[in-house]
Amino acid sequence: MSKTAQANTQVLLRRRPEGMPVPEDFEVVNGPMPAPRDGQVLVRHAFISLDPYMRGRMNDAASYAKPVALGAVMETRAVGQVVESRADGYAPGDWVLGGYGWQAFSAVPASALARLDPNEAPVQSALGILGMPGMTAFIGLDQIGRPKAGETVVVSAASGAVGAVVGQLAKQAGCRVVGIAGGADKCRYVTEELRFDACIDHRGDVAAGLDARAPDGIDIYWENVGGAVQAAVFPRLRDFGRMVMCGMIAEYNSTPLPGPNLMSAVRKRLRIQGFIVSDSWARYPEWRALAAPMLRDGKLRYREDVVEGLAHAPAAFIGLLQGRNFGKLLVRV
Amino acid sequence: MSKTAQANTQVLLRRRPEGMPVPEDFEVVNGPMPAPRDGQVLVRHAFISLDPYMRGRMNDAASYAKPVALGAVMETRAVGQVVESRADGYAPGDWVLGGYGWQAFSAVPASALARLDPNEAPVQSALGILGMPGMTAFIGLDQIGRPKAGETVVVSAASGAVGAVVGQLAKQAGCRVVGIAGGADKCRYVTEELRFDACIDHRGDVAAGLDARAPDGIDIYWENVGGAVQAAVFPRLRDFGRMVMCGMIAEYNSTPLPGPNLMSAVRKRLRIQGFIVSDSWARYPEWRALAAPMLRDGKLRYREDVVEGLAHAPAAFIGLLQGRNFGKLLVRV
Repeated sequence: MSKTAQANTQVLLRRRPEGMPVPEDFEVVNGPMPAPRDGQVLVRHAFISLDPYMRGRMNDAASYAKPVALGAVMETRAVGQVVESRADGYAPGDWVLGGYGWQAFSAVPASALARLDPNEAPVQSALGILGMPGMTAFIGLDQIGRPKAGETVVVSAASGAVGAVVGQLAKQAGCRVVGIAGGADKCRYVTEELRFDACIDHRGDVAAGLDARAPDGIDIYWENVGGAVQAAVFPRLRDFGRMVMCGMIAEYNSTPLPGPNLMSAVRKRLRIQGFIVSDSWARYPEWRALAAPMLRDGKLRYREDVVEGLAHAPAAFIGLLQGRNFGKLLVRV
Repeated sequence: MSKTAQANTQVLLRRRPEGMPVPEDFEVVNGPMPAPRDGQVLVRHAFISLDPYMRGRMNDAASYAKPVALGAVMETRAVGQVVESRADGYAPGDWVLGGYGWQAFSAVPASALARLDPNEAPVQSALGILGMPGMTAFIGLDQIGRPKAGETVVVSAASGAVGAVVGQLAKQAGCRVVGIAGGADKCRYVTEELRFDACIDHRGDVAAGLDARAPDGIDIYWENVGGAVQAAVFPRLRDFGRMVMCGMIAEYNSTPLPGPNLMSAVRKRLRIQGFIVSDSWARYPEWRALAAPMLRDGKLRYREDVVEGLAHAPAAFIGLLQGRNFGKLLVRV
């Protein structure tokens, strides 16, 4: 199959969403096939990743990364195979992490590539448990949460790509781990497959659930969702509690809500701290060295939610923001 | 003057305040003269300290310390002289830090005493710049703020016993320091005597003042006040900003206000952290070793606001909560 025989299917940002994105905010087009320059390779994407942070990039607002321009290809990382190489050390057929964008092909500088061994782990795990989401869990726990044996850890979005890893790492650190997830199926997965101690359905009474499942309070709260869950957790933090601020997906499509009164940060010596995993990407080999053996031994479990075809990426992304995915959301290109 | 010739004037908590305390919440009585047991000394108080944290002890609410019981002596630390010693190593006339309560005398175990040398520094400085308030500034900056040369530091309650030290230490660390204080006199003191770079009157437009005096944003915010000042500062924190949560005096007499939306803690990698100086009291010799030479050399300045007589302590304390004091508030007993 020659590259010229194929169009480069792309998903563009057509307009900036107001609140929850709708399909009309995106446009699927047949774009130009990228041509690699010297030092670049052409990658045919096998999988692209859909992650909640991308909602922020759709706004025209300053953040830690630039917004996606109107009419530009939506941003993501991709895993794929080299089709054409103009860079030393890469040949057609090589599997790489390093494609860009919600599209079928991208031209990528060799310096931005990471080689993948398909015999070591499924290649798409480089977008999930062995990639940014898993690394996010590792960095946030290591730099902010610092779980100690016997502590109680509450993880929101517990069945998600980040939360699932947070809880499993905290269990391995000897903590009691309570997840919060949406619906009975996800909660069952969290306790039975991921082996958290308990899981609270956020569609029910989260405060009562916390009082039942974490009656002595919470030492570490992993914040993925914000909103009503944050409001229920915050007053239940214990002295010297840590709130690891990873994201607040429940508020990405609404105007910002007021946060908790911060006086208890004084009284309880709380630490509320945010982080962005890309600041710590130099530590990625640490995470890979820790996680890959645990994956092989079945000590770290994960689940993927694979959508077929780029044309379905917008709907899948909207579903992600509504909590409809179940596991790491990927698109098979 | 024999101890038996004197009553032990005491200020009791008569009832729990609703909102701002009023004089009727206190009662001044002639209480029993305490009798030291073996291992204790009787201390005649020369100065007691009035500090904002005492407002929290007047509530019947769980906090990091127990509330003062109704009918009990209001809590504080005191500096005084030994009148009678039943402990090795202390003799009448010795100056000590270690009295208790809004009262004229207390019986104190020797283990809770620190000897003071009146030739080294004025004895009452052990309640202020060389005591808990100075130590609070030292610990909060060292453990949370971590100022780096070139950073912008904003200090609320800048003319107060803690804020004045925070700003001077941050200046010595090479920071640009902007104070926030109430009124032109305090602001003049902050810039002229304490040598902060600027001071904003919180009775004016704090947001506009910050835009003018810290146009590139704020790296460290020392939170002493909460309320409208916090609301003005929070959105102006820079990436990797630190919010040192020391107190929120503007809210001690009202119902808690909502805090800022915490999503920017993620985007900006903020750290919001509270602390209680007593957790770190083992480090007090460090502070004394640092501060005493700076005081002698005039590199660290301070101001005391001394009220005469225990009977005036309630009104002075109410004034403290209203920002009417100017410098470390002490009562000469």
